[in-house]
Amino acid sequence: MAAAVATVQRPEAETVEEASNLQWPLPPEHRPSGAATRPGDSEDAPVRPLCKPRGICSRAYFLVLMVFVHLYLGNVLALLLFVHYSNGDESTDPGPQRREQSPQPVPTLGPLTRLEGIKVGYERKVQVVAGRDHFIRTLSLKPLLFEIPGFLSDEECRLIIHLAQMKGLQRSQILPTEEYEEAMSAMQVSQLDLFQLLDQNHDGRLQLREVLAQTRLGNGRWMTPENIQEMYSAIKADPDGDGVLSLQEFSNMDLRDFHKYMRSHKAESNELVRNSHHTWLHQGEGAHHVMRAIRQRVLRLTRLSPEIVEFSEPLQVVRYGEGGHYHAHVDSGPVYPETICSHTKLVANESVPFETSCRYMTVLFYLNNVTGGGETVFPVADNRTYDEMSLIQDDVDLRDTRRHCDKGNLRVKPQQGTAVFWYNYLPDGQGWVGEVDDYSLHGGCLVTRGTKWIANNWINVDPSRARQALFQQEMARLAREGGMDSQPEWALDRAYSDARVEL
Amino acid sequence: MAAAVATVQRPEAETVEEASNLQWPLPPEHRPSGAATRPGDSEDAPVRPLCKPRGICSRAYFLVLMVFVHLYLGNVLALLLFVHYSNGDESTDPGPQRREQSPQPVPTLGPLTRLEGIKVGYERKVQVVAGRDHFIRTLSLKPLLFEIPGFLSDEECRLIIHLAQMKGLQRSQILPTEEYEEAMSAMQVSQLDLFQLLDQNHDGRLQLREVLAQTRLGNGRWMTPENIQEMYSAIKADPDGDGVLSLQEFSNMDLRDFHKYMRSHKAESNELVRNSHHTWLHQGEGAHHVMRAIRQRVLRLTRLSPEIVEFSEPLQVVRYGEGGHYHAHVDSGPVYPETICSHTKLVANESVPFETSCRYMTVLFYLNNVTGGGETVFPVADNRTYDEMSLIQDDVDLRDTRRHCDKGNLRVKPQQGTAVFWYNYLPDGQGWVGEVDDYSLHGGCLVTRGTKWIANNWINVDPSRARQALFQQEMARLAREGGMDSQPEWALDRAYSDARVEL
Repeated sequence: MAAAVATVQRPEAETVEEASNLQWPLPPEHRPSGAATRPGDSEDAPVRPLCKPRGICSRAYFLVLMVFVHLYLGNVLALLLFVHYSNGDESTDPGPQRREQSPQPVPTLGPLTRLEGIKVGYERKVQVVAGRDHFIRTLSLKPLLFEIPGFLSDEECRLIIHLAQMKGLQRSQILPTEEYEEAMSAMQVSQLDLFQLLDQNHDGRLQLREVLAQTRLGNGRWMTPENIQEMYSAIKADPDGDGVLSLQEFSNMDLRDFHKYMRSHKAESNELVRNSHHTWLHQGEGAHHVMRAIRQRVLRLTRLSPEIVEFSEPLQVVRYGEGGHYHAHVDSGPVYPETICSHTKLVANESVPFETSCRYMTVLFYLNNVTGGGETVFPVADNRTYDEMSLIQDDVDLRDTRRHCDKGNLRVKPQQGTAVFWYNYLPDGQGWVGEVDDYSLHGGCLVTRGTKWIANNWINVDPSRARQALFQQEMARLAREGGMDSQPEWALDRAYSDARVEL
Repeated sequence: MAAAVATVQRPEAETVEEASNLQWPLPPEHRPSGAATRPGDSEDAPVRPLCKPRGICSRAYFLVLMVFVHLYLGNVLALLLFVHYSNGDESTDPGPQRREQSPQPVPTLGPLTRLEGIKVGYERKVQVVAGRDHFIRTLSLKPLLFEIPGFLSDEECRLIIHLAQMKGLQRSQILPTEEYEEAMSAMQVSQLDLFQLLDQNHDGRLQLREVLAQTRLGNGRWMTPENIQEMYSAIKADPDGDGVLSLQEFSNMDLRDFHKYMRSHKAESNELVRNSHHTWLHQGEGAHHVMRAIRQRVLRLTRLSPEIVEFSEPLQVVRYGEGGHYHAHVDSGPVYPETICSHTKLVANESVPFETSCRYMTVLFYLNNVTGGGETVFPVADNRTYDEMSLIQDDVDLRDTRRHCDKGNLRVKPQQGTAVFWYNYLPDGQGWVGEVDDYSLHGGCLVTRGTKWIANNWINVDPSRARQALFQQEMARLAREGGMDSQPEWALDRAYSDARVEL
């Protein structure tokens, strides 16, 4: 007994309050009658001998005794079962936690599971497929990154590629339209304000790396030190040709020339941030049984709740041809109080200014062995400090996966069936999602030979615990009302329609 | 109801088995009689009308009904209370977990709490003193290291210093006796074996840093590149004077000359590994109320079980005079299957070869502001990799806190009342103690001006979960049998007698 009490983990504070108001739902026939619970009745009666011996031997007495003894034993057993299941049932199930959803009020969600990294190289044995052991190895602590070889079988990998090809892949990145660029150029920012925004080290001069750091200036094109200098000379912005713009040089520059240059200079696909094709494969109810099985396997791997995994993005399948790449990036954006998540915007106020995909985790599968290149690089993994300006130097930009993958801290070579997974957000200290982990910066290195196929399972969690709870409740309601395979899928389609275009 | 069930955390697998065998201990008078539970008895009786109406109105019937209704309600309430307390009671208590100890069998201990680091610079608010907020700041993730300003009040700091002075401090390190050195020199190891042991990079030559890395060769003296070269020239070991010994040069060396040199060369206290004075202050039952209060505060800070904190080492108070230092070291040794812990050796087989202090955590208090120097340095904190050989170079040994504190990654300046605390061991992935964290390497920098007073509260946990449980059980038994302040204190004295001499 004492041991059982000692090893029970402490639940959330909210649970305690609920537990103290706990009402065991007695079936009506078991409820004691009003008369029986009013002892005053018998005290008012005239004094008589307490017990007559012949009464105890009567048939009626025996029957009543029997009924109560059975009721009593039945209820004790029921309560013991309740104690047992409320404490222990979840861990007898090797799969992830089960949570029940009551429609009103929205329940508080339990803490998000986060695997312990322990140390780089640490290995643990897990069962994600019945009757088979897998090993999870810690690749880095910053970001918290793991690999698990053989997560998918070779046949599963081939099937996913086949399904993706049947559905058809689209270009992952297309250049913004001219209208968009014109809107950009029409945007009014004072040239001095812009200079101060760009001059991160406040030395009154714009180094190449300060311009490189503003990836958005490229507007989909990947900027290199060379093409910034080309642009400078084309619009005559840097007469002394030292690659550094003084405030004077910057003020003399006509920003319209810059935008004109960007419009006129057509970018090849290998000059973009991302050079690949992709498609999305449904994994919900009604999907191919292998797609369903993979989602269940991811659920076991991540040890998150079924609702979180089930209501996450579909599987993204990506093909990088020879010459393909994806420069280093983070999979999910920073979170401000005004930020909404793509997956929960159905239940959020849609007029807020910032939206991001809220990808708590990335689970990346390698679907084939790549003949040359195509590693996944984490340029700053486990660095002592994160400093964007030491990441981007005037001559070497570590984010550039076409040129500088060899200088990154950690590279994972694609191996068919292996999954790598990591957390894009730090914990918040309360068991939920905190800040974006800057160290999760990663990219796909240049494929020098052959084709590279990967798939991404992103696990979406809203940094607002309440909104995630509301979202899960709403999805469950839609599923009940519209049948398990119509409404939620529509909702997902709607939630990710932008993501599909954006990426 | 559903929410309460959903947020209950999953207990250990062991708990589940215990729960399924759970027997609710019914008091004997509540146990149903054998007759009542054998329904066969009544079935054998001759058939009679099931119920006589007048029986139901009888006094006897009413009394029996009343008794059972009350028993039933009482038991339902007791079970509900059990459900409530086994799920929720612990988190209503702001302090650490409570564990009950039953004498037989030894209970499995719950997971060890480990504060989340989140990221360097992360701050969290905690209540370790009633009615006052403190802030814990993450200083590094490797080791997992925090600081908490104002953990002790200035008066408490002064009192600890006063108590230590009254008790009297002893020199922290004395040179080994000649007998010990003679035993060392008599130890037979082939000279070739010794060379191969020292030649870590296997280049067939002994660099200075390879000799420096063998701190034990100094036998209590701190070795610097200079005094190794002095020794070489005194015993003519390195004729070409390049500071590197070839296998030839090493073979020509007479090890007896080395030992003779070490004996003849008397070391000053500033040439030792540690140059300080210290004493131990009791914190158990009967100790000064401030000492008791500090132990309770440490309990709240670490969120470990009261047994672990209560049965840990006494408080060590250390004085570093001007010129004092403590070269970088780890507070606890590596753990092999044969290793025993100083604190649990009472319940372990004492004939095993290795013993270490098993200090899961170090809580270090700064008792005064130091005029000059005296920082605590963590030379390799948050480095991407741990590599002893990059820590020790031929010219710069980062462990040397008299010379190279300025080159360490992290330095904490003493501030009266501030506590820093860290974990000396990594987790094992099962909620218990894993390997030693090499990154926990730390030292006390040279005190250049004034005196430095600190105190150490080490939290001892046996890496063997079963042995820690056995130890706690044994300590509880000793406390019951011998009165709370006689036996356990004796046991602690015995357990730490060696530690006091050794350090």
